[in-house]
Amino acid sequence: MGNADAEVPMIRLSYNDVHNSIQQCAAKIQKEFEPTLFIAIGGGGFIPARILRTFLKTTTEGKKRNIPIQAVGLTLYESMGGIAEVVGKEVVRTQWLDFSTLGKTFKHGGLLGRRILIVDEVDDTRTTLIYLIRELQKDIDEQLQLIENTEDREKLRETTKLGIFVVHNKLKEKAGELPSGVQYFAAQETPDVWLAYPWECDGQIEEHDAMRSQNPKP
Amino acid sequence: MGNADAEVPMIRLSYNDVHNSIQQCAAKIQKEFEPTLFIAIGGGGFIPARILRTFLKTTTEGKKRNIPIQAVGLTLYESMGGIAEVVGKEVVRTQWLDFSTLGKTFKHGGLLGRRILIVDEVDDTRTTLIYLIRELQKDIDEQLQLIENTEDREKLRETTKLGIFVVHNKLKEKAGELPSGVQYFAAQETPDVWLAYPWECDGQIEEHDAMRSQNPKP
Repeated sequence: MGNADAEVPMIRLSYNDVHNSIQQCAAKIQKEFEPTLFIAIGGGGFIPARILRTFLKTTTEGKKRNIPIQAVGLTLYESMGGIAEVVGKEVVRTQWLDFSTLGKTFKHGGLLGRRILIVDEVDDTRTTLIYLIRELQKDIDEQLQLIENTEDREKLRETTKLGIFVVHNKLKEKAGELPSGVQYFAAQETPDVWLAYPWECDGQIEEHDAMRSQNPKP
Repeated sequence: MGNADAEVPMIRLSYNDVHNSIQQCAAKIQKEFEPTLFIAIGGGGFIPARILRTFLKTTTEGKKRNIPIQAVGLTLYESMGGIAEVVGKEVVRTQWLDFSTLGKTFKHGGLLGRRILIVDEVDDTRTTLIYLIRELQKDIDEQLQLIENTEDREKLRETTKLGIFVVHNKLKEKAGELPSGVQYFAAQETPDVWLAYPWECDGQIEEHDAMRSQNPKP
């Protein structure tokens, strides 16, 4: 089994590998983006978002507070291909932001004036991320239209920021480009191989961890 | 530091501890509940739900499929106390189910006829779980009212199941009882001590893991 597996280009990751990668990147995110809202893409972004929250806090009235996590569910129909022309068409929403609650907690419909960090485990073809950025930008634009005072509206437009954090960015051709102004953070860059995340391990997790010795050397 | 820490009743957990606990409980959940929908309580339920999804699949047309995860965000205002009289009053929704998408994917408004497993990391005072069960039951009842045919409605009422999975159940007085008919699964039962989850570790995760040798012996 060891020999057969060695032929598959695969990088096995332990939970602590992922935890450490996120911890190392968190300081950079805090310095350069200072997020005030996380949007976790489910299911892959759930674990990274929860870990990241440990390292990034906001300070309100001198008290450290957790940054809220909103979840969205997006399913990529990979069978439809990932070419640029159909970006978005093959992504299906299984859950969207809950503006009924976001709006109560935050001013201006929930997104305006926020520094919003999208969190996922891996940036593979980038299809899902491009879809999500575009859909969020639509929601932001709609919420901006409701601000009657021009000066207020333009100030909110300027202070609403979108960013992306992924644990791993696969170095490969992407389905499209991210809009300018979207800040991008990847804890690790990897070749285009299969990333075996620990939470996908349905065998013995200790054996999975031990087999990381077979990972290709950087 | 070691001595001071040893005085604090605390159980440190590694990611693999949590992974293994969930893996061991998954077979029982599959046998006794067969969930078709997960509801993860954020942020604590995000990691357990994503791990649990690895071990439980549904089979549709002979193909194994992921069980969908919907997220809800609930914040417990512990300062208000956890006594039975105010259960629910101190829980604030920060995100609710997205019926616009759930309804498209599932028949009958999204919840009816489903075996719905609520997932969280720990059952402490039980306040959040009781709140969530009650609110979901309201949504289920509303959706049942829309079914005009009595026979269909009663069949759907019977086949809609609520269950709970927590990684740890603290053996202590709870804020209230769960309604009968709600199936309950806890991967581990623990004394009423501080559970130090690995995703809350903002120091060195390897050191956190090593200090598990100081955990109280069962």
